[in-house]
Amino acid sequence: MQYHLNGFHSGDPELARTHDAESVGTEVDVAIVGCGPAGLVLAAQLARVPDVSVRIFEKKPGPLEIGQADGIACRSVEMFEAFGVADRVLKEAYWVNETVFWRPLEDGKLARATRIRDVEEDLSEMPHVILNQARVHDFLLDVMARSGKQLVPDYNRALAQIALYPDRTHPVEARFDCVDQPGETEVVRAKYLVGCDGARSAVRDWLGHPLKGEAARQLWGVMDVLAVTDFPDIRLKCAVQSADAGSLLIIPREGGYLVRLYVELDTLNDGERAGDRNVTAEMLEAKARAILAPHSFEVKEVAWWSAYEIGQRVCDAFDDVPEADRATRTPRVFIAGDACHTHSPKAGQGMNVSMADTFNLGWKLAAVVRDQAQPILLHTYSLERQAKARELIEFDRDMARLFSAKPQTEAEQAQFQEYFQKHGRYTAGVETTYSPSVITQAARHQHLATGQVVGKRFHSAPVIRLADARPLQLGHVLKADGRWRVLVFAGASDMGQSGGQVETLCAQLEAETSPLRRYTPQGADIDAVIDLRVIFQHSHRALDVGVTPPLLRPKKGRYGLIDYEKVFCADPEADIFDLRGIDRAHGAMIVVRPDQFIATVLPLVAAQDLATFFDAFMGADGS
Amino acid sequence: MQYHLNGFHSGDPELARTHDAESVGTEVDVAIVGCGPAGLVLAAQLARVPDVSVRIFEKKPGPLEIGQADGIACRSVEMFEAFGVADRVLKEAYWVNETVFWRPLEDGKLARATRIRDVEEDLSEMPHVILNQARVHDFLLDVMARSGKQLVPDYNRALAQIALYPDRTHPVEARFDCVDQPGETEVVRAKYLVGCDGARSAVRDWLGHPLKGEAARQLWGVMDVLAVTDFPDIRLKCAVQSADAGSLLIIPREGGYLVRLYVELDTLNDGERAGDRNVTAEMLEAKARAILAPHSFEVKEVAWWSAYEIGQRVCDAFDDVPEADRATRTPRVFIAGDACHTHSPKAGQGMNVSMADTFNLGWKLAAVVRDQAQPILLHTYSLERQAKARELIEFDRDMARLFSAKPQTEAEQAQFQEYFQKHGRYTAGVETTYSPSVITQAARHQHLATGQVVGKRFHSAPVIRLADARPLQLGHVLKADGRWRVLVFAGASDMGQSGGQVETLCAQLEAETSPLRRYTPQGADIDAVIDLRVIFQHSHRALDVGVTPPLLRPKKGRYGLIDYEKVFCADPEADIFDLRGIDRAHGAMIVVRPDQFIATVLPLVAAQDLATFFDAFMGADGS
Repeated sequence: MQYHLNGFHSGDPELARTHDAESVGTEVDVAIVGCGPAGLVLAAQLARVPDVSVRIFEKKPGPLEIGQADGIACRSVEMFEAFGVADRVLKEAYWVNETVFWRPLEDGKLARATRIRDVEEDLSEMPHVILNQARVHDFLLDVMARSGKQLVPDYNRALAQIALYPDRTHPVEARFDCVDQPGETEVVRAKYLVGCDGARSAVRDWLGHPLKGEAARQLWGVMDVLAVTDFPDIRLKCAVQSADAGSLLIIPREGGYLVRLYVELDTLNDGERAGDRNVTAEMLEAKARAILAPHSFEVKEVAWWSAYEIGQRVCDAFDDVPEADRATRTPRVFIAGDACHTHSPKAGQGMNVSMADTFNLGWKLAAVVRDQAQPILLHTYSLERQAKARELIEFDRDMARLFSAKPQTEAEQAQFQEYFQKHGRYTAGVETTYSPSVITQAARHQHLATGQVVGKRFHSAPVIRLADARPLQLGHVLKADGRWRVLVFAGASDMGQSGGQVETLCAQLEAETSPLRRYTPQGADIDAVIDLRVIFQHSHRALDVGVTPPLLRPKKGRYGLIDYEKVFCADPEADIFDLRGIDRAHGAMIVVRPDQFIATVLPLVAAQDLATFFDAFMGADGS
Repeated sequence: MQYHLNGFHSGDPELARTHDAESVGTEVDVAIVGCGPAGLVLAAQLARVPDVSVRIFEKKPGPLEIGQADGIACRSVEMFEAFGVADRVLKEAYWVNETVFWRPLEDGKLARATRIRDVEEDLSEMPHVILNQARVHDFLLDVMARSGKQLVPDYNRALAQIALYPDRTHPVEARFDCVDQPGETEVVRAKYLVGCDGARSAVRDWLGHPLKGEAARQLWGVMDVLAVTDFPDIRLKCAVQSADAGSLLIIPREGGYLVRLYVELDTLNDGERAGDRNVTAEMLEAKARAILAPHSFEVKEVAWWSAYEIGQRVCDAFDDVPEADRATRTPRVFIAGDACHTHSPKAGQGMNVSMADTFNLGWKLAAVVRDQAQPILLHTYSLERQAKARELIEFDRDMARLFSAKPQTEAEQAQFQEYFQKHGRYTAGVETTYSPSVITQAARHQHLATGQVVGKRFHSAPVIRLADARPLQLGHVLKADGRWRVLVFAGASDMGQSGGQVETLCAQLEAETSPLRRYTPQGADIDAVIDLRVIFQHSHRALDVGVTPPLLRPKKGRYGLIDYEKVFCADPEADIFDLRGIDRAHGAMIVVRPDQFIATVLPLVAAQDLATFFDAFMGADGS
């Protein structure tokens, strides 16, 4: 954490000292509809970026108290780290360390078949965890409240109407019914409006995008219970397939006692809905007992339960611009999360993908609102996230099919387990790959960093900070503050000396025409928009802070204090160059988007290519 | 974290749900005077223990905003983990990773001589960190406020008078002047009163214990500054000895910009005080610049500064019972922290030792108030902490002498550095060793666990929790909740099976006469007073939860839910048996006090010895 830049202050350093909340009224840059995971991540992201006014509306009277989602993928924990709340998530959550498969033996008796790591080694520096969605909301609300905007949702506001007036500075007009004051309405005019208003999205209805997908046929029950059992693996994630009583997925919950069970119930008839079957918590308990037999299973308290049909649906577009108009219009209204894709909860993807939607959108909106980027940037949201949603739907369909397939033979059972395992990377959320676009280049120089794939999220690894010898994860430097990062991995002989490649590159980046100079507003710190960091191969004891180029010791803030946190060294015990396949001879320059995704990999000599990349969407008219 | 035992609740699990604040009025079990580190640790500890009423008084009008202390030793961070706030400390603090020694070369020019790790490998699982004392206070106030007692200090209350009425149930009567209501006073009657009221302690004055020690002669200055310098190691802890401009200690501070400098000033004349020299911040800056020359050093803002004399003073006793009366009387009034020992700040010991004082006292007071232990237990506080204070005074004296010795030869300089390095363990706070007493046995079986020394703090190491395969630090199980821990390390062949040593021991501990049964109040969970945990040598995948003795799967709370967090396995990548010298053939039983210090090491067959140990201070009349 860096603080005290503009003077010493006592008190909590995470509490913003400068407040820009006053500018918010009926005209805002961004209006968000819905306080679910998608809406809150968007609000938290925008709250952390200066010069963007934002309001978030929710029809419920207050924060969520009990949520349905609970799985937090590694990738989402990485994102929480960027918001500064991963520590709180990790402290309270259940950690999914291993997954166990139970299957019937030949005599029909249930037995532990296999036990695997839930997440493969070094897939992420963060674990896969389980935590009540309501706590996730709490943490994001906290990020908002502690920001300079002191952003708090407007509760009791149900979206009633949207209208678009293209000629206005704030073209989106939204009218909300005041749920707590019948008959009253509130009108807000926004530059952009984002519907994070769930599966029954009013914003989606206004856009006229239907949710397309297959009819749901398979009925499942889910319950969070406090129970006493002699099933030995009740504190491990288990996929249990009984001989003839059906399937069960056990997800232990936070706190050491609570557990979630997904119970397979039945196939629905045509036209039948989950509600038609009169499922009760007692039915779920009885079914679970039958599946776990001969183990005892006695429920003491049901904290929450539900019955649901598996259905996979997705929208064709996530914004208000038809495909044919993309060249001439940029979007003003977006949808995200459940508003544009729904699927079954078992793979723990819903909340994660929804949050990833708006983590993708948030920095783009901020950049356009702040005039740091052209509005064409906004087209990439639908492009990137719609592809992701389709992929998710496919995955979920496969998963649901496998779960319900009642594998009989050993081979079928093994196939199920293999699929489960193979898709660990997918469910961890780290496989998302964005296609080439104005912000994601075709991978011409991928060989320079084989483990940092263009289009995927930056894969963290340990490093040692030069100035204070502090070991840390390089990925944790990539905060959710709307900034781009240029990470320069130095070649083998480079120690920052004069005439070396890093020094030469720094000199080029100091030039007036470099993107660092060009896109940094007058008077702002040199790292305000593009944040340059360098990683050397040598031991931190071999290098000297005083020898590194001055651009890596930038003077910042009102006192011109030196920022000493720009230079890192490889950790000999876990060398980032080895771990991530960085070319030791030539080094590599990795450009990371504000959402931590890799935009491009370039050689160190490619300062001009770097400028060309940024000019394409930051420069006026792409020049 | 364990929660939801007595039913599911939404919201922050660290916020206590049951409140026992109402019982507090003018009669309390414990009255604390002073809201410094000692007072707040004591209040936080008592707040976390049920059935103890407590109030804490402070003459200032509110919480500290800028503190002088900043060094937090590894041992203190371990203690913060026991209070559940280590994560917050680690997030905000500067981490002291390395220490650098600068000395003049033969030509008089300053040069980096040596660079060492600040804390040796595996000395503690926690780093040595630097953080403003005011933030430490904030975290402890938070622990208090979020406890069931919702404990908040009574500010504006200056201690005016103490009187002792031995025949009353609440024999200590304290009268406070209400600083905010001139002429008003408030009277509180307490079973015990603890003076944590600093170097000018009114409680110490009432006790009549003088602070004894040497006259202070050496004048030092200290300042927290935001500065611009080209001294390359400004973000590392540095001991700088110039050729003829004096010495300087650099302590980088939290947030990446702030730095603390300790500057050697002068020797005081007889009878002269620091205030007589008219030291100014400008003088300190000029002196620092001279020492660091030819490096530039320009101060932009002074956050805080002070000039102080080095003095070492300590009281002969920390409670109200004269040595001769110990057999017939137990103490009612105590002093802790700066009230009983003062020393120079440079070794970063003041705050740490003060907090350790009351971490030692807190659980003892709670146990006596709750009738879990006899009052004789309270004699051990003065015994243990007074010895520690004397040791600290000696250390500080040596340290101050060395700092001011102006070593000229290479050999003298090397000696300084060696001393600095050798005492890393001491300054880390992990060398404290309590002498044998009713709660610390003479080390008869130390050979069974050579790395867990009787009288020292339990030295944490990694383990894997059996039930959920979660890797964690065993030491982090030892929460500051007033409970004793019996940690059973199983022998090599033991897998928890019937007839094995662990199973036999568990059977003995289930007997009516065992301390677990005997000292657990009627209706309380079996681990309410003594918490049994077992660590096996085998991989967690080789063991079966269902095979472990039922005592290790205790049923708790109103539902009789099973607590699955009692059994651990060695982590093959960092085997706790190897790391801590546990006898693999025979295992070991380690009894850990509520303050994490090791009371005794016993063989697994010594269930009777375990009973004898507890009976000596828990049983009525020691039987």
